[in-house]
Amino acid sequence: MDNLFTTLDNLNEEIISIRRHLHKHPELSFEEVETPKYIAEFHEQLGHEVKTGVGGNGVLAYLKGDYEGPTVALRADFDALPIHEETNLEFQSVNDGVMHACGHDGHTATLLGVAKALNKHKDELHGTVVFIHQHAEELPPGGAKPMIEDGALEGVDVIFGTHLQAQMPLYEINYRTDELQASSDSFEVTIFGKGGHGAMPQDTKDSILIASQLVDNFQQIVSRRVNPLQSAVLSVCSFEAIGPYNVIANTAKIKGTVRTLNEETRELMEQEMQRVIEGTCHLSGADFEFKYDRGYPVLINHKEETEFVMEVAETVPEVQEIKETEPIMGGEDYSYYLQEVKGTYFFTGAQPEGTKNPYPHHHPKFDIDEKSLVIAAKILAKSTMEYMSKNK
Amino acid sequence: MDNLFTTLDNLNEEIISIRRHLHKHPELSFEEVETPKYIAEFHEQLGHEVKTGVGGNGVLAYLKGDYEGPTVALRADFDALPIHEETNLEFQSVNDGVMHACGHDGHTATLLGVAKALNKHKDELHGTVVFIHQHAEELPPGGAKPMIEDGALEGVDVIFGTHLQAQMPLYEINYRTDELQASSDSFEVTIFGKGGHGAMPQDTKDSILIASQLVDNFQQIVSRRVNPLQSAVLSVCSFEAIGPYNVIANTAKIKGTVRTLNEETRELMEQEMQRVIEGTCHLSGADFEFKYDRGYPVLINHKEETEFVMEVAETVPEVQEIKETEPIMGGEDYSYYLQEVKGTYFFTGAQPEGTKNPYPHHHPKFDIDEKSLVIAAKILAKSTMEYMSKNK
Amino acid sequence: MDNLFTTLDNLNEEIISIRRHLHKHPELSFEEVETPKYIAEFHEQLGHEVKTGVGGNGVLAYLKGDYEGPTVALRADFDALPIHEETNLEFQSVNDGVMHACGHDGHTATLLGVAKALNKHKDELHGTVVFIHQHAEELPPGGAKPMIEDGALEGVDVIFGTHLQAQMPLYEINYRTDELQASSDSFEVTIFGKGGHGAMPQDTKDSILIASQLVDNFQQIVSRRVNPLQSAVLSVCSFEAIGPYNVIANTAKIKGTVRTLNEETRELMEQEMQRVIEGTCHLSGADFEFKYDRGYPVLINHKEETEFVMEVAETVPEVQEIKETEPIMGGEDYSYYLQEVKGTYFFTGAQPEGTKNPYPHHHPKFDIDEKSLVIAAKILAKSTMEYMSKNK
Amino acid sequence: MDNLFTTLDNLNEEIISIRRHLHKHPELSFEEVETPKYIAEFHEQLGHEVKTGVGGNGVLAYLKGDYEGPTVALRADFDALPIHEETNLEFQSVNDGVMHACGHDGHTATLLGVAKALNKHKDELHGTVVFIHQHAEELPPGGAKPMIEDGALEGVDVIFGTHLQAQMPLYEINYRTDELQASSDSFEVTIFGKGGHGAMPQDTKDSILIASQLVDNFQQIVSRRVNPLQSAVLSVCSFEAIGPYNVIANTAKIKGTVRTLNEETRELMEQEMQRVIEGTCHLSGADFEFKYDRGYPVLINHKEETEFVMEVAETVPEVQEIKETEPIMGGEDYSYYLQEVKGTYFFTGAQPEGTKNPYPHHHPKFDIDEKSLVIAAKILAKSTMEYMSKNK
Repeated sequence: MDNLFTTLDNLNEEIISIRRHLHKHPELSFEEVETPKYIAEFHEQLGHEVKTGVGGNGVLAYLKGDYEGPTVALRADFDALPIHEETNLEFQSVNDGVMHACGHDGHTATLLGVAKALNKHKDELHGTVVFIHQHAEELPPGGAKPMIEDGALEGVDVIFGTHLQAQMPLYEINYRTDELQASSDSFEVTIFGKGGHGAMPQDTKDSILIASQLVDNFQQIVSRRVNPLQSAVLSVCSFEAIGPYNVIANTAKIKGTVRTLNEETRELMEQEMQRVIEGTCHLSGADFEFKYDRGYPVLINHKEETEFVMEVAETVPEVQEIKETEPIMGGEDYSYYLQEVKGTYFFTGAQPEGTKNPYPHHHPKFDIDEKSLVIAAKILAKSTMEYMSKNK
Repeated sequence: MDNLFTTLDNLNEEIISIRRHLHKHPELSFEEVETPKYIAEFHEQLGHEVKTGVGGNGVLAYLKGDYEGPTVALRADFDALPIHEETNLEFQSVNDGVMHACGHDGHTATLLGVAKALNKHKDELHGTVVFIHQHAEELPPGGAKPMIEDGALEGVDVIFGTHLQAQMPLYEINYRTDELQASSDSFEVTIFGKGGHGAMPQDTKDSILIASQLVDNFQQIVSRRVNPLQSAVLSVCSFEAIGPYNVIANTAKIKGTVRTLNEETRELMEQEMQRVIEGTCHLSGADFEFKYDRGYPVLINHKEETEFVMEVAETVPEVQEIKETEPIMGGEDYSYYLQEVKGTYFFTGAQPEGTKNPYPHHHPKFDIDEKSLVIAAKILAKSTMEYMSKNK
Repeated sequence: MDNLFTTLDNLNEEIISIRRHLHKHPELSFEEVETPKYIAEFHEQLGHEVKTGVGGNGVLAYLKGDYEGPTVALRADFDALPIHEETNLEFQSVNDGVMHACGHDGHTATLLGVAKALNKHKDELHGTVVFIHQHAEELPPGGAKPMIEDGALEGVDVIFGTHLQAQMPLYEINYRTDELQASSDSFEVTIFGKGGHGAMPQDTKDSILIASQLVDNFQQIVSRRVNPLQSAVLSVCSFEAIGPYNVIANTAKIKGTVRTLNEETRELMEQEMQRVIEGTCHLSGADFEFKYDRGYPVLINHKEETEFVMEVAETVPEVQEIKETEPIMGGEDYSYYLQEVKGTYFFTGAQPEGTKNPYPHHHPKFDIDEKSLVIAAKILAKSTMEYMSKNK
Repeated sequence: MDNLFTTLDNLNEEIISIRRHLHKHPELSFEEVETPKYIAEFHEQLGHEVKTGVGGNGVLAYLKGDYEGPTVALRADFDALPIHEETNLEFQSVNDGVMHACGHDGHTATLLGVAKALNKHKDELHGTVVFIHQHAEELPPGGAKPMIEDGALEGVDVIFGTHLQAQMPLYEINYRTDELQASSDSFEVTIFGKGGHGAMPQDTKDSILIASQLVDNFQQIVSRRVNPLQSAVLSVCSFEAIGPYNVIANTAKIKGTVRTLNEETRELMEQEMQRVIEGTCHLSGADFEFKYDRGYPVLINHKEETEFVMEVAETVPEVQEIKETEPIMGGEDYSYYLQEVKGTYFFTGAQPEGTKNPYPHHHPKFDIDEKSLVIAAKILAKSTMEYMSKNK
């Protein structure tokens, strides 16, 4: 089996060059055209069965081992962000205003490397590998859900995936056996007041005042109504009521996000927001429209599968530390896969070596250490092979 | 002297046709070009000395009576509003998006009628009439102040003016012997918080929450800190903090207006706003910028001159009712003239006859009853002549 | 008629000694026993018909002039306040914790002086004088209403009264021809939340938070919903939710007062409070009880009668200045009389001569200048006699 | 070693009768007199060295085993609550208004049972047992701290203790390897405004409004400034500003509690409260006094010792389930011991068998199932003996 690691070491340069190619040609969520074509061709050249246009722009590729056995899915996302890159890398984005600023280029390069490696070891494989190349992770409703609806998990027994983390030390792996990432919902409230002359408030219903009180009243949901042992965030991130300085605004619109780490709290948040909006509008006699869009659910790892992958991770020579992480309040649509099949999602340290304060994800100067790619690849590839052996 | 009224009755048709011409060709505040040219030519044809470009786009015209005596100023404003007219009048605006929706076309037509009438009665005039045709009343800092600075009130002993009111019954005149219209100030507060991920409020200073609390905290200035016997309004009319649903906003900007009926309260409002902003920002550790721009001051009529003009009004046959009005919270830069010289500003009823619910000023369907023009003209013209006779 | 003033000058010492007697023996509202007995005896000795126990503790006395004519009522209140006196006057209160700290002792002494004077001039009186000695002005629902219901105004044509003002210069009289004093209502809101452990807010409905938000939300009623040209005050003066530091309170109770200068605004205040309470409680799912008790109505003077009395005041030698006053937001149940019959209520300056910063009414060190008594007496007495002569 | 369990089974009846005796004679925190005397006598009869008046009303007793070895402390609290008992138990409290409504009677009975049992097995003991009978757990600053300062932990190597839980199933044991109970602080904020007439808010600084805004502004500390993965509670539990309905209050006082699960968050809470109070008072120009009293710190168990005790618990025949619990936000001054020495605190199920909805702690009808006592005793006694054997 050490053979597999050597295979991957030999593929390292190719993996990096794939990553650089993808980095140079980023594509926005739901607008991916060239990237899925590139991925499909790569798998076709390996002789894998390929499906394109899965649930939108997704790509599925299938590698059948020489022996019967379970079906293992590996997932990598491949969309980029509407950010103007400022890294000055040689392979900087040529699509102005679009950038791989979250590492998805690395995820995809890693998975293609894994595909090539496992293909070479086909004669040791007891089962089928499904490579899920997912589009549109960055933009809810995301690509995971439609890909699943389009059959991505058909026959799948287990799924593995990883996220490269620029602010986590290289050579470190983080896991969590239960909730890893928050549910990520969005909402929009429009207050319908009654506009009028700025000097005659008595003839109006001041939508800006009402919306302001709403922002303030929302605070008590987290501070008073959520169990303090639970995590919840309600952020109003946009307030739109632009007008002249002397005309009381007819309508005001606020938008924001809600994060929780379990479904019960998520339900509570929506229900309490409804109550707070109703009361706040009633006290001014105003009307409202409240839209609450459920985004990605809580990402909940499966304990046994997580521990299994971490045991594999321990055997990867480059890995120096494996730690349990706290949950993070950011969302990830990998959560949909884990609602359907068992599996795990873990973090692979990718902080550029020698950097003290690495740029955060989604920053115009974001970068990863490319040495992380082969580490992620080794964990995913060996977990796949080993899982098959154990469950054949 | 009855002669003067007859003269004006004979000019009635011309006054109306002037008004319709101006209505058809409205120009925005500070962008007036054709209107002052039209006015200047009208006066020049009457042989009046004319100054153009006064304090910007203003026009001054001088009519010297045959006898020595005091100098009486009459003022009419001539700018229009950025409103798309929907009246379907024959003489509807041909400048799309610009409309005489506040009656300034009527003011100017009235004053030109007065000029022509008084010119015909030059041999009865004991003194000089200054016709102040003012630009840009609608848009602070307004045209009155620069026109005064440019000499509009030089040598002037008294000033008279009127506003046509579409929501006041035709044949009615309203006056007030002291404060008639509110000071009208504008403000802008920018909150400098600290933006960040919507799921990590603890790393941010939430500028939308801070600005919302500010809007709410402003309420107590009027409700608790202003003498309940004084009038004051503080309206936040614009709230700008537009962003994606999941990124906490770095800055938020609010704008609004403050109205009062005396300088002491006006001072208090600004000072208390400063205190409230400071405290509200301090409690979140945020910074701010507070701009408070003094607009038009309180319009304070002079008692004696007001009573004088109302006595004249009583002699105008069409006038059926003369009433004292409550102050109104809207501003008017006529106030600057009254800070310099004695005089009065009154309201002339112009509600279209037969209309039950006339459209308010600044409405796309706003209209006046043209019969009001000659009424206003008679009061202004006779007040001028009579004032001269009394003070020669 | 100068005779009447001389008569009063001769009674001055007696008036002062009556005032001192009353000051020494103050009695609380609705608990007056000795004061009405004293008053009744005084009138009986003058041979006036007397009714006691009118509407509670009130006293009515009747003086019939030698001639037929109108009936003029004069009113003075005689209750004291639950205040511990700290004046160190020789005639300081001997009833500990009770004090004439609002001048009612002076009002009553004045009225008794007037009674004695008019009695002496009976042969010049064309009509009947009703002396209304009213109990319980300080404590709503007050004594005026029940006294009226008990016949105090039967046959009365006009009513006059005055309030001594310690913070108004001696020798000055203030009047107002319309609304002089505000309506004075009280309210009580109880929030029924759900108590619980201070560490488990999610299981409670935090009544203190809800009541706090209510106090804050009330601000917008005055700041946004009342016409800025109208006067209104809503003050929460009591907040009661006392408990241990670690148990979330089940209920919270707030109490306060509402003042307005017309009935329309008064209606609006109650109705908007209802709306604000409903909304504020709804947003937390709490219940409430809202009690709004109408106290004294707006005191509205009658123009003609006010001007009449001020003309009389001008003839009083001591009077140096007569001024129109702004309304005051404090309440006064004299308003009930003016709802039934014509009349006026005016202010008599009583600031202790030589004092720069006189103590306010209701202060433990409150005092009046006794020279004000005979001034008030002269205005009331002469107004009565003159009104009769004019209307006989 | 099974012998020890048998010994305790034989003592079961005595333990129960001790519990009933204590239950009947409850004493308030810091007012304990008879209870410590009772405890001291019990130990003296066993021949244990006893110290009384330790850190106030605490009692220490020492049992030296026949062999050298480590020193193990066992702690039970013995104070009762100011609650009027309504259980109707045969052994109901005879001290009216005082009740053992939190199970401390059971804790003490258990520990005395353990003392007697271990005394009987002295010849198997390798070390010393310190019995810490602590007063005043219910009332911060509590008895633990002064007892430690008075030497309670001198020479102690490890400490064990348990709390009987009426709402946890009998036969169940709950543990936690890190933070088990919250820090429990109290605070008091006094707002110094400026009182005045309810009708003249402009002359006052409305302390009730300011304190109300403070209560509201506090909400954002938990909702925005605390990491959502951390737990924090800020409850305002008392609001005191009682006065007449028409006098604006000079001062308002609020009191409450703060709970956190780590010191960093605790620091943050106090610091942010300071900031919020400063800003809220500044915006109204008011002064304040802010007292923040640190109560019990976070109770943090030690992992190794916790796991050790749970292994012992598994050997107790009655124990049917052992579960990790979530932290609870209530405080406990056992936390002080764990800051000094290693050890653990666990929960012993004591829900009365057959009861579906047991009354909560601190309820007038609170009760425990007495079968829980011997279970707790077995775990404590055997943990002590075993710990000594392992560490001799």
